[in-house]
Amino acid sequence: MNARTRGRPPGDDGAGRTRGAILDAARELFAAKGFDRTSMREVARAAGVDAALIHHYFGTKSGLLVAALTPERDPADILAGVAESTDVGVALVRRAIGFWEENPEQRLRAIAMLRVAATDDEVAGRVREFFLGAAGRVLHDAARGDQRQRRISLVASQMLGLVMARYVFALPEIASATPDELARQVGPVMDHYLTGDL
Amino acid sequence: MNARTRGRPPGDDGAGRTRGAILDAARELFAAKGFDRTSMREVARAAGVDAALIHHYFGTKSGLLVAALTPERDPADILAGVAESTDVGVALVRRAIGFWEENPEQRLRAIAMLRVAATDDEVAGRVREFFLGAAGRVLHDAARGDQRQRRISLVASQMLGLVMARYVFALPEIASATPDELARQVGPVMDHYLTGDL
Repeated sequence: MNARTRGRPPGDDGAGRTRGAILDAARELFAAKGFDRTSMREVARAAGVDAALIHHYFGTKSGLLVAALTPERDPADILAGVAESTDVGVALVRRAIGFWEENPEQRLRAIAMLRVAATDDEVAGRVREFFLGAAGRVLHDAARGDQRQRRISLVASQMLGLVMARYVFALPEIASATPDELARQVGPVMDHYLTGDL
Repeated sequence: MNARTRGRPPGDDGAGRTRGAILDAARELFAAKGFDRTSMREVARAAGVDAALIHHYFGTKSGLLVAALTPERDPADILAGVAESTDVGVALVRRAIGFWEENPEQRLRAIAMLRVAATDDEVAGRVREFFLGAAGRVLHDAARGDQRQRRISLVASQMLGLVMARYVFALPEIASATPDELARQVGPVMDHYLTGDL
């Protein structure tokens, strides 16, 4: 995935408008009918474009889904400054959970992407690349040099589990906790993964 | 879910054989065609029983799925003694990941259950109750009395994230780690959740 497919690009050139219309149609249909039951042909019809154009822009249906559900803001932007915080783990959890709480539309997109990724290996692969790429950019400087990739992946595993537990499985103690509570309770774990002795 | 629906009961009474045949047929069809595309009627036909009997034993299709995918061994049995270990966190991760590594059939069941739960709220609810119930029984004595439910839920969130990261998303650094490495690296986190200052 590259920046060009990450939502409607700036400017109002024809290609940008067309891509935006396809992504809007895809989001509506995926949400209404589910990923499996939505066809590329239907998305094309709803967007008023030829199906070949969707394949041209997004490749497969999985590629279209990932483009449609990718956050509008780069995670590196959402988490800017976290790595330089005096309390990296707390800031990381606070900022990530806070963003989803304050942006319900973005939260629904993230949950939808996780749900499909859990059942579609191609989507899972694309989500993995996107997520690990973003985590690597955001956390590279905060992670100790030894086993840096392992450290970042362990942080990712706890973040993934936290999001699944809160929004997908709705474990009562996790779903009802405030973002500040979770930041306080999970933050030290993130610090351990990033800089502790592993 | 209760003990009677947790797989083929002991003994070879007729009801047990019938339930077992239904569960075997359900496992095969769910694995071959997926949950959505398998009907109760097909399961009944494959098991050679009337569909009404499946409803009688298992309620809904989600209930049948959860019964079919629930581990043959009680998690409390798999994790017996962990709470009394000198190194609870390490023992917990080692035993859980080790069980799935050594029992591929059980691992596939667990992954299938997580995959369906991610997209089906009724299955998610049943998995949540089963999982939290098992975690509560296994970890009750190992968790400090203050915020015990929160502690156990945080352990569950990290375990869920670890399993998703290793088996569903296949993050390279988590998927390629040995169970011992993961136990050493994630174990201290489990201890923090169970007994640290939250």
